[in-house]
Amino acid sequence: MFASQPAVGYHEVVIETPSHSRHLADMDADELAAVLSVYRARYNTLMAQPGVRYVSLFRNHGREAGTSQPHPHAQLIALPMVPADVERRWDVAARHHETSGRCLYCDLLAAERASGSRCVLETGGFAAVTAYAPRFPFETWILPERHEADFGRISDQELSALARVLRRVLRALRDVLGDPPHNLVFQSKPCQGPDGAEAAAGFHWHLQIAPRTTRQAGFEIGTEMAIVPVLPEQAAAELRAALKD
Amino acid sequence: MFASQPAVGYHEVVIETPSHSRHLADMDADELAAVLSVYRARYNTLMAQPGVRYVSLFRNHGREAGTSQPHPHAQLIALPMVPADVERRWDVAARHHETSGRCLYCDLLAAERASGSRCVLETGGFAAVTAYAPRFPFETWILPERHEADFGRISDQELSALARVLRRVLRALRDVLGDPPHNLVFQSKPCQGPDGAEAAAGFHWHLQIAPRTTRQAGFEIGTEMAIVPVLPEQAAAELRAALKD
Repeated sequence: MFASQPAVGYHEVVIETPSHSRHLADMDADELAAVLSVYRARYNTLMAQPGVRYVSLFRNHGREAGTSQPHPHAQLIALPMVPADVERRWDVAARHHETSGRCLYCDLLAAERASGSRCVLETGGFAAVTAYAPRFPFETWILPERHEADFGRISDQELSALARVLRRVLRALRDVLGDPPHNLVFQSKPCQGPDGAEAAAGFHWHLQIAPRTTRQAGFEIGTEMAIVPVLPEQAAAELRAALKD
Repeated sequence: MFASQPAVGYHEVVIETPSHSRHLADMDADELAAVLSVYRARYNTLMAQPGVRYVSLFRNHGREAGTSQPHPHAQLIALPMVPADVERRWDVAARHHETSGRCLYCDLLAAERASGSRCVLETGGFAAVTAYAPRFPFETWILPERHEADFGRISDQELSALARVLRRVLRALRDVLGDPPHNLVFQSKPCQGPDGAEAAAGFHWHLQIAPRTTRQAGFEIGTEMAIVPVLPEQAAAELRAALKD
C-alpha cells in the first residue's frame, strides 16, 4: 500500500560504566555528568548524519521497562523520519507559540511554579515536576529553565546541574518505589528540515522519567488512554519527602 | 488547567466460566458463542446509558497482558467521552469514506483478499488477517464481511460464526507462540452523538488480538513507534500452517 523507502538509520549503545550492576543513581554527580556528556556527543553526531530526521535518546532500567541487557547502558536510535507522535507534540507547541507568542513549556513551568503541587525540585536551572497528565504513576519530567529546543545545545555547566537534579530524583524514586523498572526518554527537536526551522521557537527539550509499575492492558491498547492509580500531586509530595542532597 | 467534569462511567467484569483455569480457546464453539452473546448484551446495555459516549470491551490473558485476576473474564469500561485515539481512527475512516464513497475497512478486506499474504482464515462471513502495520508481533484482526460500525448489532448467526473463527485463531496462536499473554480488543463505534451519526458509514467494527511477547521500552514511549520483529506475512503463514478445524 505504501512505496518502500530506503532504510537509513543508526542504532548506538552507550555503555555507561565498567561495573555490571552500577545504578545510575549511585554514580556521583561528576560521573553522571560525564555519562550525560557522552549522550550529548553521540546525539549531536547522529543528528548531523545525512538522511537523519530524528534521534531518539533513551535508557531502559529493569525487565518490565524493556531491558534485555542488564549492564548499564543508554541507546540512541536515529530515524529517517519524524515519528508521528513527536510531530504531534511539536505541532501542539507550535500552535501555542503562534497564538500566544510564548513557549508552551515555559508556560507550563510558570504554571507549575505558581501551583507548586507537582513540583519536586528546582535548582541550578532545572526543574523536576510530576506530569500533569501522566501515562505512568510517578511520571516525572525534568525541564531546563532556559528556553532551548535542542538537547544537543546543553552547556557543560548545565550538564553538571542536570546530573545533580537527575541523581536526586532517581534516588527519591528508588526510595519511594523500591528500585522501580523505569525508562528515561529525552524529548528533543527533530533535525532542521523543511518545516523544522521556523517552529523551533515553540519547542523546549525535556527529560521524561517513566516508572513502569503498571502494565498496558486491553483498555489501554484499545483507547490509548492510561490508567494511573496515583495522583501526580501525591507522587510529588512523596518524592519531595524522600529527597536527599 | 481544565475544568473538572462530573465522573460518569461504568466498569463491568464478565466472568466467562465457573472453571478457574479454562482457556477461551478450549471452549467449544457453542460455549464461546454464549460468552460472546453476553459481551453483546452488556455492550448494548452500557451503550444505552445516559452520559456514556464510548464503551471499551476487552479481555486480558496472562500477566504480561495486564491480567491481575487469573479467572477467565472480560471487561467493559463505559466512558463519558470518546477517547482521542478512537476519534482519530474514526476520522481517518470518515475521510476515506468522504473522498472514495467506500468504507476503509471494506477496502482493506478487499486488498487483503487480493494480496492473500496476510490472510489467516476466511469463513462464515468473517476474515482473520494479520495487521498490515502491527503494534505487536502476530497482531491479528478479525473483521466481519458485512459492513457494520456497531459490534452491538451482530446477529446470533454471526456470533456463532465469530466464535468458530476466534476459537481457531486463538488455538493457532497458542500452538505457534505457546500460550502467549494477549489482549482481545473490540473496536466499535462511539455512541450516537452530535457528530457520530453521519460518520457511521465510514466505520466497521473489528476485533483486534494483540499477543504481548514484546515490551514497550524507552524508544516506544518516546516515539509511539512499535518495534515488531516478525513480519505480518510470516506471522500469517505460521498461523495458517497451525490452523485446525
